[in-house]
Amino acid sequence: MQTEIISVGTEILMGTIVNTNAAYLSRECTKLGYPVCCQQVVGDTKESIIKAVKTASGRAHLLILTGGLGPTKDDLTKDAVAEALGMKLMEDLHTKERIRKYLEPVSGKEIPENNWKQAMILEHGIVLDNENGTAPGMIVKQENLTVILLPGPPRELEPMFQSKVVPYLEKEASKVVCSKTVKLCSFLESQVEMKIKDLTGNQGNPSIATYARLGEVDIMVTASGKDEQEAEDLIRPVVKELKKRFGEDIFTTDASVSLEECVVKLLKKHELSFIAAESCTGGLVASTLINVPGASDVIKQSFITYSNKAKRKYLDVSEETLKKYTEYSAECAKEMARGAAINGGCDVAVSVTGIAGPGGGTKEKPVGLVYIGCYINGKVTVKECRFQGNREIIRKKSQVSALDLVRRCVLENYK
Amino acid sequence: MQTEIISVGTEILMGTIVNTNAAYLSRECTKLGYPVCCQQVVGDTKESIIKAVKTASGRAHLLILTGGLGPTKDDLTKDAVAEALGMKLMEDLHTKERIRKYLEPVSGKEIPENNWKQAMILEHGIVLDNENGTAPGMIVKQENLTVILLPGPPRELEPMFQSKVVPYLEKEASKVVCSKTVKLCSFLESQVEMKIKDLTGNQGNPSIATYARLGEVDIMVTASGKDEQEAEDLIRPVVKELKKRFGEDIFTTDASVSLEECVVKLLKKHELSFIAAESCTGGLVASTLINVPGASDVIKQSFITYSNKAKRKYLDVSEETLKKYTEYSAECAKEMARGAAINGGCDVAVSVTGIAGPGGGTKEKPVGLVYIGCYINGKVTVKECRFQGNREIIRKKSQVSALDLVRRCVLENYK
Repeated sequence: MQTEIISVGTEILMGTIVNTNAAYLSRECTKLGYPVCCQQVVGDTKESIIKAVKTASGRAHLLILTGGLGPTKDDLTKDAVAEALGMKLMEDLHTKERIRKYLEPVSGKEIPENNWKQAMILEHGIVLDNENGTAPGMIVKQENLTVILLPGPPRELEPMFQSKVVPYLEKEASKVVCSKTVKLCSFLESQVEMKIKDLTGNQGNPSIATYARLGEVDIMVTASGKDEQEAEDLIRPVVKELKKRFGEDIFTTDASVSLEECVVKLLKKHELSFIAAESCTGGLVASTLINVPGASDVIKQSFITYSNKAKRKYLDVSEETLKKYTEYSAECAKEMARGAAINGGCDVAVSVTGIAGPGGGTKEKPVGLVYIGCYINGKVTVKECRFQGNREIIRKKSQVSALDLVRRCVLENYK
Repeated sequence: MQTEIISVGTEILMGTIVNTNAAYLSRECTKLGYPVCCQQVVGDTKESIIKAVKTASGRAHLLILTGGLGPTKDDLTKDAVAEALGMKLMEDLHTKERIRKYLEPVSGKEIPENNWKQAMILEHGIVLDNENGTAPGMIVKQENLTVILLPGPPRELEPMFQSKVVPYLEKEASKVVCSKTVKLCSFLESQVEMKIKDLTGNQGNPSIATYARLGEVDIMVTASGKDEQEAEDLIRPVVKELKKRFGEDIFTTDASVSLEECVVKLLKKHELSFIAAESCTGGLVASTLINVPGASDVIKQSFITYSNKAKRKYLDVSEETLKKYTEYSAECAKEMARGAAINGGCDVAVSVTGIAGPGGGTKEKPVGLVYIGCYINGKVTVKECRFQGNREIIRKKSQVSALDLVRRCVLENYK
């Protein structure tokens, strides 16, 4: 079932609004077994909508249009679809009555005349009542093509899609698509691909794709089947193989779980209190962790020690270490982590110190050189990282690596 | 100049990610005088990219493709463009060397072989160096068509577009479009709109548009003219009027300047040292400030005091205050700011305490209630905020309000 989405709206072409409708519909259609093969965005002119509909109807079996169903002059989606597919528009009395009821409390008896335009429906179409506005949606079938028109505002579109379009498409669907995401840290996308090259070679069903985020790589395994069971049976052995290959490098196989959630859960499970001592990340590690609801169970305080004076005062980093090795050193990271754990009275401490740039780098200690320490059970593990990118990227990658190091150290100590 | 954007990426078609690149590019192209007439999104298959390029090249003069420039097998944009437009791919030694330099510190001498694919460039193309990744962008011209290829990750695409594509397109443009952005804090977009309604009524040249960000509203004034001079002459009186109406609510009229940069600059100017004491924001204020290059001149350390015990230990918040008013109170924010300034030996301190949710709210003290304190010259100013949204949004809005309060307090004390 080839599916296409056409979003109508000059404001999307101007970049004034981000096309979240297309993302929402793509996600939902994929789940329902209607993978989307193309998205188009066109402006509020009849010609451009007609052109897009004609192009799409030549190759798609399901076509979803959003936007352009309002009462104003530049709302032209229905007219354009009617013209592109040779259909007629007819007044729908049921919709007319709904519009009257919706608008009377707001505008009184004198409803602006242009609103009645919204009661016009594509001939033989199924009307989708709009519970959150006056523009009805509609579904029309034509031989091998199903066309669905939905209003543009997400607060109208989403409830309409869930309550009326999902049941319709579920009834019509022949196939279900499922996917599972395996999330890894501390790898380059290219390194991950080299390790799974043999699995991605034969891209049929299931398919495997990698996505790089800052400091993270996701491997998504997708399969289709006649039902969920069949699709999941195809996915399971691939995920099992990935788990075998990557082991503890995988921090979750749940697409909705973030690294920080995973770390908070792990600390909670083992009843470990946590503290951070941050130099170049300047609070980013603690702040990311605290964004997880319930983080207060594991983190009570943290230190931002940007200057060497603060590192000495709050973390007891020795003057000798700073002199001999500088603050950009494994030794400093080690003392920072130990000092934070002891002075804060915590079970686990992570420290970050390094050069985020743009200034401050030397040949021996270049921008991007970051040391991360993790204290646990009296022992400190230090990791040396060499990150690329601007200040923001280096700081973000440091934060991801710090949380990943905490995760690995906890797993190692609490098998 | 007909402009089209083609975004390549199965993850967009699956709705896993929202196509913010298309919005960004549309906005930027519109500003530069290249209005976008169509956006397309296609998956990671060569055929679909070829089809999209052929369709677009038949009607557009400027074609921008994003994504599919990575090192893996499903990165096919260059191959597809070459095939669609009858061009060759050639190895670029300059890019090869850049990739080597970028990857060697991370992966050692054994750079994964698939990375060299990224050194292949469209024949006669202009190479756009990627400062934040290994995929170079490129510009190729063919009679009436200019094609620009950009990497998919926004953190790579946006700096490349700003530093390399903007100057290129500006040189090629026949009309000049200029814009000036006036940035405000602590306002709702609708409130701003009410105050400038009379200015936006007649949307010709210049035009005025408002954009809401989290806790921030930008007013963009755009004008076109035969040269920069003419466009800027149209913009100047409008910006002057906006300055008259909003006064010190405006923190900058430079689109590229962030609130945190503005605050760092202001503190530096008056040689003021700064410290934060954060509860619900958990390091977000300090971390945002520290992201500004050179922030170390004004911030040396900060406190993350999430628990009441930590508030007492590091900030000397009194037990009585916590008992009588709870930690979610103006009194607590006041003592936190004062304690941070005194114990940290700083001129200016900001404190944040409140309920970010989802739990912890009551009828009297609901989720979203946040107190922000700012200590300066022995005096503490406290602001009570009631934010809407989820935990992340409430924390982010708190951070913006905290920095804005610092800005206003410094301005008040150092006119």
